[in-house]
Amino acid sequence: MSERFGWTGKILKVDLSVGAIRAEEIDPSIQGHFIGGRGINAWILRQGLTGSIDPFGPENPLVFGAGPLVGTLIPANGRFNVSSRSPLTTLLGDANAAGLWAPLLKRAGLDGIVFRGISERPVYLFVTEERAEIRDASHLWGKTVSETDQELRREHGQRAHVLSIGPAGENLVRFASIMSDVDRAAGRTGNGAVMGSKRLKAIVVCGKLKVPVADPDKVHSLAQEIKAAMLSAPSYKTRSQLGTPMVILLYNQMGVLPVKNHQTGIFEGAERISGEHLKEKYVTRLKSCYCCPVHCSRYSEVREGKYAGTRLEGPEFETLCFMGSNIGQDELEPILYLNRRLNDLGMDSISTGGTIAYAMECYERGLIGQKEVDGLDLTWGNTDAVIQLVDRIAYRQGFGNLLAEGVRLAATKIRGSDRYALHVKGMEVPGQEVRGLKAWGLGWATASRGGDHCRAFPVMETIWSPQQALAFFGTEKAADRFAYEGKPAMVKWAEDLGAVIDSLGLCKIAYVSLGISPDLIASAYQAVTGVKSDVNQLLKAGERINNLERLVNLKLGLTPSMDTLPARFVEEPLPEGPGKGEVVKIRQMIEEYYRLRKWDLATGYPDDAKLKELSLAR
Amino acid sequence: MSERFGWTGKILKVDLSVGAIRAEEIDPSIQGHFIGGRGINAWILRQGLTGSIDPFGPENPLVFGAGPLVGTLIPANGRFNVSSRSPLTTLLGDANAAGLWAPLLKRAGLDGIVFRGISERPVYLFVTEERAEIRDASHLWGKTVSETDQELRREHGQRAHVLSIGPAGENLVRFASIMSDVDRAAGRTGNGAVMGSKRLKAIVVCGKLKVPVADPDKVHSLAQEIKAAMLSAPSYKTRSQLGTPMVILLYNQMGVLPVKNHQTGIFEGAERISGEHLKEKYVTRLKSCYCCPVHCSRYSEVREGKYAGTRLEGPEFETLCFMGSNIGQDELEPILYLNRRLNDLGMDSISTGGTIAYAMECYERGLIGQKEVDGLDLTWGNTDAVIQLVDRIAYRQGFGNLLAEGVRLAATKIRGSDRYALHVKGMEVPGQEVRGLKAWGLGWATASRGGDHCRAFPVMETIWSPQQALAFFGTEKAADRFAYEGKPAMVKWAEDLGAVIDSLGLCKIAYVSLGISPDLIASAYQAVTGVKSDVNQLLKAGERINNLERLVNLKLGLTPSMDTLPARFVEEPLPEGPGKGEVVKIRQMIEEYYRLRKWDLATGYPDDAKLKELSLAR
Repeated sequence: MSERFGWTGKILKVDLSVGAIRAEEIDPSIQGHFIGGRGINAWILRQGLTGSIDPFGPENPLVFGAGPLVGTLIPANGRFNVSSRSPLTTLLGDANAAGLWAPLLKRAGLDGIVFRGISERPVYLFVTEERAEIRDASHLWGKTVSETDQELRREHGQRAHVLSIGPAGENLVRFASIMSDVDRAAGRTGNGAVMGSKRLKAIVVCGKLKVPVADPDKVHSLAQEIKAAMLSAPSYKTRSQLGTPMVILLYNQMGVLPVKNHQTGIFEGAERISGEHLKEKYVTRLKSCYCCPVHCSRYSEVREGKYAGTRLEGPEFETLCFMGSNIGQDELEPILYLNRRLNDLGMDSISTGGTIAYAMECYERGLIGQKEVDGLDLTWGNTDAVIQLVDRIAYRQGFGNLLAEGVRLAATKIRGSDRYALHVKGMEVPGQEVRGLKAWGLGWATASRGGDHCRAFPVMETIWSPQQALAFFGTEKAADRFAYEGKPAMVKWAEDLGAVIDSLGLCKIAYVSLGISPDLIASAYQAVTGVKSDVNQLLKAGERINNLERLVNLKLGLTPSMDTLPARFVEEPLPEGPGKGEVVKIRQMIEEYYRLRKWDLATGYPDDAKLKELSLAR
Repeated sequence: MSERFGWTGKILKVDLSVGAIRAEEIDPSIQGHFIGGRGINAWILRQGLTGSIDPFGPENPLVFGAGPLVGTLIPANGRFNVSSRSPLTTLLGDANAAGLWAPLLKRAGLDGIVFRGISERPVYLFVTEERAEIRDASHLWGKTVSETDQELRREHGQRAHVLSIGPAGENLVRFASIMSDVDRAAGRTGNGAVMGSKRLKAIVVCGKLKVPVADPDKVHSLAQEIKAAMLSAPSYKTRSQLGTPMVILLYNQMGVLPVKNHQTGIFEGAERISGEHLKEKYVTRLKSCYCCPVHCSRYSEVREGKYAGTRLEGPEFETLCFMGSNIGQDELEPILYLNRRLNDLGMDSISTGGTIAYAMECYERGLIGQKEVDGLDLTWGNTDAVIQLVDRIAYRQGFGNLLAEGVRLAATKIRGSDRYALHVKGMEVPGQEVRGLKAWGLGWATASRGGDHCRAFPVMETIWSPQQALAFFGTEKAADRFAYEGKPAMVKWAEDLGAVIDSLGLCKIAYVSLGISPDLIASAYQAVTGVKSDVNQLLKAGERINNLERLVNLKLGLTPSMDTLPARFVEEPLPEGPGKGEVVKIRQMIEEYYRLRKWDLATGYPDDAKLKELSLAR
């Protein structure tokens, strides 16, 4: 085999039932087709999955992958992807996180790890460039993420980096997360519960190899060029000072900040939970991810009062929204405390917050009373009750045990609550008010993992100019967030680009929100891997990955009717703000989106010509 | 006096009536207030102007100024400003051009030159770092700009750079231009005629000094940073390949490309006169201005056919529009020929084209016939007639003599034609269809020099995102080109920024169209001059300059009722395209603009508080 760069194709296959580990090499042509990370994960999943696999059964593969740019000098490259059949959606479940774990996996000479089987007792995997071992984790089982990380780094040294699950994953909460370096979450679709079902508490990596790149000089100069482009982006300054929390006041001004289970889009307490207020009172210092000049993350601390001693990396926008406005709560200190607790329990803040908001609306409307919720007062903004409920979900106690199933299953138990269970394909929707952001609405409906904003991440709708929209999507209206024109084209393009960025191991905030030219990404890919490429080929690979994921989902039971939005967004007009009276005409956008994708509206399958074009088999 | 950097304050005062030259120094506090270039020009003009000065009389000062960044390493810095009382508008007339003249003026140790008086016989000024001489130009009088430039560079060497006028300026055509390096035009408001009235044929500069800067290392690193920001701008690629002609197809798609004297905004022949077609067939190589990485200019050549041998730098968008779509003409070769000829005659292509379009519409509507136009057939698109008419205007022959006065005066002679004389304050309007670009409409109406797009240059309306618009102007609608909300705030901001950029000697294409952060401009200003500054102080200086220009105009007879648009744009709905049915509600925008500027709607004067804030006297 000729020398390979960036993504060398080496993955570990670990069978936890029998305790076997072997290394395998993936063919370069597969890499050329699916890039790495998220793309290769989906390809691996497709080999073994059938519609009858139990997400918590031994046959469900749990796949970790780091893309070709991870561990190089290309900015903002440290992300990995984890994939399996989701216990929340029963479809393709995958999530993506930062931290130093992925660069160190690459420095151990690996591009991915696939787990199958179920261990008899709790274990963790320890990986270096020289060996991989399954080790006993009985002493860690039951421990929080912070405790687990601390203990494992005490054992393996500070150069080791840790992925781990907390009690929520152990207890099979359907939206349990996998945590990286304690506070970075592969949060969505419940991969933490899949990890828990395998009794795999953690994966520790520690590597010293250099990631080989094809053209080191070119990689170096491109890294400089990309960095300069990031620093000169118009939103760089705000983003580098406030991070994603900058969105709170912006969304509120736009009337699209979710409030009280997405009942409206304007929150009275927005200033109080804003990124500006956070920075002024609680941020201790800014933080960069691996090789990233944007440093949009930050450390926060509560120094006095009831929550004194709370320290964490974060919070991000979604947590501010889901532990704040969307449950009618306008104080930062409990948000910081809850974020710390959610990370330690290993539980997704969006799905947890969405589930609690659902319960609070049921409570407000009298569908459940204090008796059904074990004596808690689930009035909007009652933080003390939320703090208790979060633990009850993680430990599956009483009413918490019902919510641990997610809103879709909970709604089968609470009569008349279906309308308030805001999910797509079983996954709770994230922190946008899509009646005022039509492209995001379409993106939720088409996302391969259900109610999600990160597959499409169509920020172009508000951060691109009408002129850019015209050039890319054929109509200036694509830059009007209330208009429908051009949105299917925007979402398709953004999903394809997003699949590329995820698969390479880059960050969408750094590349998409800051508007870095996809040409630069293509150049970086070529300089690292030595594979001749351009932006069109890369976007074609992104399209291939989206179609592959669709084929996986169809195999797992997806039907086209699931590509839709909760009734609230389609039928109830937005009550106030700039988008007052708006709903989302989702059907018309879906039909155009299917036409652009060459997907059949009846079966959901790509047509034969598209499959052939993408070299995919049905 | 302590050492001064960037703008050292040295200007020449030349009295052409008596042949006297003396150097003067301008006080640093004046520079701090008005920056340089355009700002200082307006300040100089204000000293001597009264409402009774004849634009062609000896007392009208003709002021040339180059700003503090000219001649440094800061990218795209080579522009100068020329100002006088305009013979076209009788108000403040100033224009701005590139070429190497301004950097060489700075390298001769000068920041500006003020001409007064009228020479008895044709002369030119020759300036080096050692001397300034008024020289005889009898041998050049009557010559074209190309011939003049060639002759003067033969005499003074290729390191000399030349500003000159052509026959149009000599013949006092009210829209005669001053040409820099042959093909760069200080085109608008007729300064070429003022120069002609003084019998000043040219100004030759040749300097060897270094422009002193306060912090050379910082200037160097900022130059790198600004260059990197330009190279990574989203529109860099297209702009660097096509230049301003990229706008032809874009405007046509948007339905805002002026056609047949602004009768509509969609042109059938747009492809044929597009920047893409130009590049494919006629462009021989790209060209950079002084210190500019954008190289948006280009050399073109016609190699065969009727116009073979035509060579020029250009054409720019406005010429493509005014010698193309706006006179119903869809061939590139005659446009290239006409551009060459206009430059050689020294005549503004916008006003010339607008005046001819006006004549063609009068002809179409039967207000004039072949008899009145000396036998020409002024049917739309009749290039041969246009070629003849252009020369007849420059030499003031027959009907051309009437058109040489501009549309406002011509319309007093052609009965019933007032509606087709498209001007603001006497200057012909430029190449946008403002019914589909409301901010540009407002910018035309408020521009201190009349129908002009470069004072405000509110490209933010289409190249900014709704989110940027919200952050800067309080409403996402400011990024909707059909909406009125936020437009007065946008135009005020853009005019203030524009005054800064003009006064510094920078290029709006490179800085505003490519979205370079004004913070970087402030840093550059500080590094060059050593004057502590930030973006707010600089924008305040921009506001001061706009108010100063307003005071000059009020002194020269401006009334608030002149801040308006031709009836065509206010009363006739746009007949087709995305903006079908649109007009410009100019009055409501003007009223808000006045409120934001703190200008009195009855008198047009800034209120006392604003004057005090800006340290200006009424």
